Amino acid sequence: MRVVCLAGGVGGGKMAAGLQGSLEPGELTVIVNTGDDLERHSLTISPDNDSVLYALAGVADDVQGWGITGETWNNAEQLAKLGEPTWFRLGDRDLATHLFRTERLRRGMRPTDVALELARAMGVPSRILPMADEPVRTRVRTDDGWFDFQDYFVRLHQAPEVREVRFDGAEAAHATPEVQDAIREADVIVVGPSNPIVSIGPIVAVPGLLPEIASARRRGIPAVGVSGIVGGKALRGPADRMMAALGEEATALGVARKYAALGLIDVFFLDHVDAALAPEVEALGVSAVITNTIMDRASARIALAAEILAKARSFAARRSAPAEDSR
Amino acid sequence: MRVVCLAGGVGGGKMAAGLQGSLEPGELTVIVNTGDDLERHSLTISPDNDSVLYALAGVADDVQGWGITGETWNNAEQLAKLGEPTWFRLGDRDLATHLFRTERLRRGMRPTDVALELARAMGVPSRILPMADEPVRTRVRTDDGWFDFQDYFVRLHQAPEVREVRFDGAEAAHATPEVQDAIREADVIVVGPSNPIVSIGPIVAVPGLLPEIASARRRGIPAVGVSGIVGGKALRGPADRMMAALGEEATALGVARKYAALGLIDVFFLDHVDAALAPEVEALGVSAVITNTIMDRASARIALAAEILAKARSFAARRSAPAEDSR
Repeated sequence: MRVVCLAGGVGGGKMAAGLQGSLEPGELTVIVNTGDDLERHSLTISPDNDSVLYALAGVADDVQGWGITGETWNNAEQLAKLGEPTWFRLGDRDLATHLFRTERLRRGMRPTDVALELARAMGVPSRILPMADEPVRTRVRTDDGWFDFQDYFVRLHQAPEVREVRFDGAEAAHATPEVQDAIREADVIVVGPSNPIVSIGPIVAVPGLLPEIASARRRGIPAVGVSGIVGGKALRGPADRMMAALGEEATALGVARKYAALGLIDVFFLDHVDAALAPEVEALGVSAVITNTIMDRASARIALAAEILAKARSFAARRSAPAEDSR
Repeated sequence: MRVVCLAGGVGGGKMAAGLQGSLEPGELTVIVNTGDDLERHSLTISPDNDSVLYALAGVADDVQGWGITGETWNNAEQLAKLGEPTWFRLGDRDLATHLFRTERLRRGMRPTDVALELARAMGVPSRILPMADEPVRTRVRTDDGWFDFQDYFVRLHQAPEVREVRFDGAEAAHATPEVQDAIREADVIVVGPSNPIVSIGPIVAVPGLLPEIASARRRGIPAVGVSGIVGGKALRGPADRMMAALGEEATALGVARKYAALGLIDVFFLDHVDAALAPEVEALGVSAVITNTIMDRASARIALAAEILAKARSFAARRSAPAEDSR
């Protein structure tokens, strides 16, 4: 069962890890947001790619919530001694990822090929694909002006309200052949519980990607979304506040509305605590599933992924049945 | 007393540290070999600059003979896990130096300005100057062909005999304004106990550097060399074998001959064990000084440096006396 998962960072990584654990090797392809990418100390850093990478390689630090487990910080300490800015610290092991990536990009390799090679090098049995090979940079406007995403996210601790979001470079980007093929060959499309605005938003802003998903759905391929907002709170990060500040409802229903408007989902998974929102989700023409969506442990990831895959299978079966009847 | 020291890596670093310890802050300028520079994991690495830097910052690992004391290797281990070549390992702290440098070079800063800023960032009270801003790359020919210097030096452990040495890019390089000014303003020029062929050789191959030293010597500025070959053995590295393989005498006398032929020394420091070579050194028109040249401890470095500075002072006084007489 070939599965494509759209993913931001940590939440997307957990979803991807659950899916990978529920599938055969090679069946999962994760399309990751690269709008958060940045240059730091001459290195090209792709935070969402790496969160997914570490989750799929089984080395993610679940306690800290990001980075590699057992990480050390001797390099960061030395950089601080040299007077370098310290707000975006890189761990000693994590740095290896950035060195691996940057060296290949400088040699002229495509970001997609680098991401695939990196995942192979870490023994990951799934494919991780950047949403595009062209640089796309998410920028947010606060009352103090426009900021690079990591500047807002890490340096400013997401404190200012976000008034506007844009994805610089998205218009000139293209869905890569690998992304197109993955969606064309998928049996299920999963939209991970990532930030709808700044994680899933940049991915679907890449020209060619949404039409590919629409085309898959027309062929009967089910698309399943999972809410990253539970009980009106983002599981991680500023999605709730960002939704509210941008005039959208900061609930699972708000997320479902957004995805439905983009033509991104047939099925939407809500947490038990949001059960009351199910009828309104259904009213969007989306099948609502109420379950435990909190992936705090590996077993919970696997359970949620298994439920998603089961639901997708039954949804696809139901959809194909009337199609055969109509002949 | 302003002192310029030409230096390769570890031996040059010890000499520079001794000089720095014997001088007032700001009086020492070290001109370092950049022929050993290399690109590794997308970073620009300048091994001789950094050996001198760490020695002058007081963080050099004297036991290991290179790198920073108390270094850790978590990044190198992770790179090895990713399947990256491991023959040139970078320590976690050492990496900060390369990140600092590479980031600035990519921003378009001159290598000289980067080296000065790096030394300041590490609290070094001396100036470290690359021999040139243009890239110069030392290459050695063995019976198996031409090799990049670090490939021969680190990966091949200096095992093959060196048949020929060249400094790619040297002809197009220039003595920088900083290097020129340092030599013009120097009261003493010291040629450190580095490899005459691959450490001092590239420095003096930079067009404009030797004439500047010749001009200083004509003005009565004493130039003092120190042998890095003691008792027919290089204190470190392959200088002895390299000298022999290239048809030169692998002794302190061979080193003195080389420097005298380049017009690089008025005075030459030999170790006690080489006392018998002093008359032949004197026969080159060079003043020979016999002393302890083994800088195994900080006190020995300071002692040697103090002796060099004292000798330079008396040499300059003697030289200026007849010059005044002749008016």
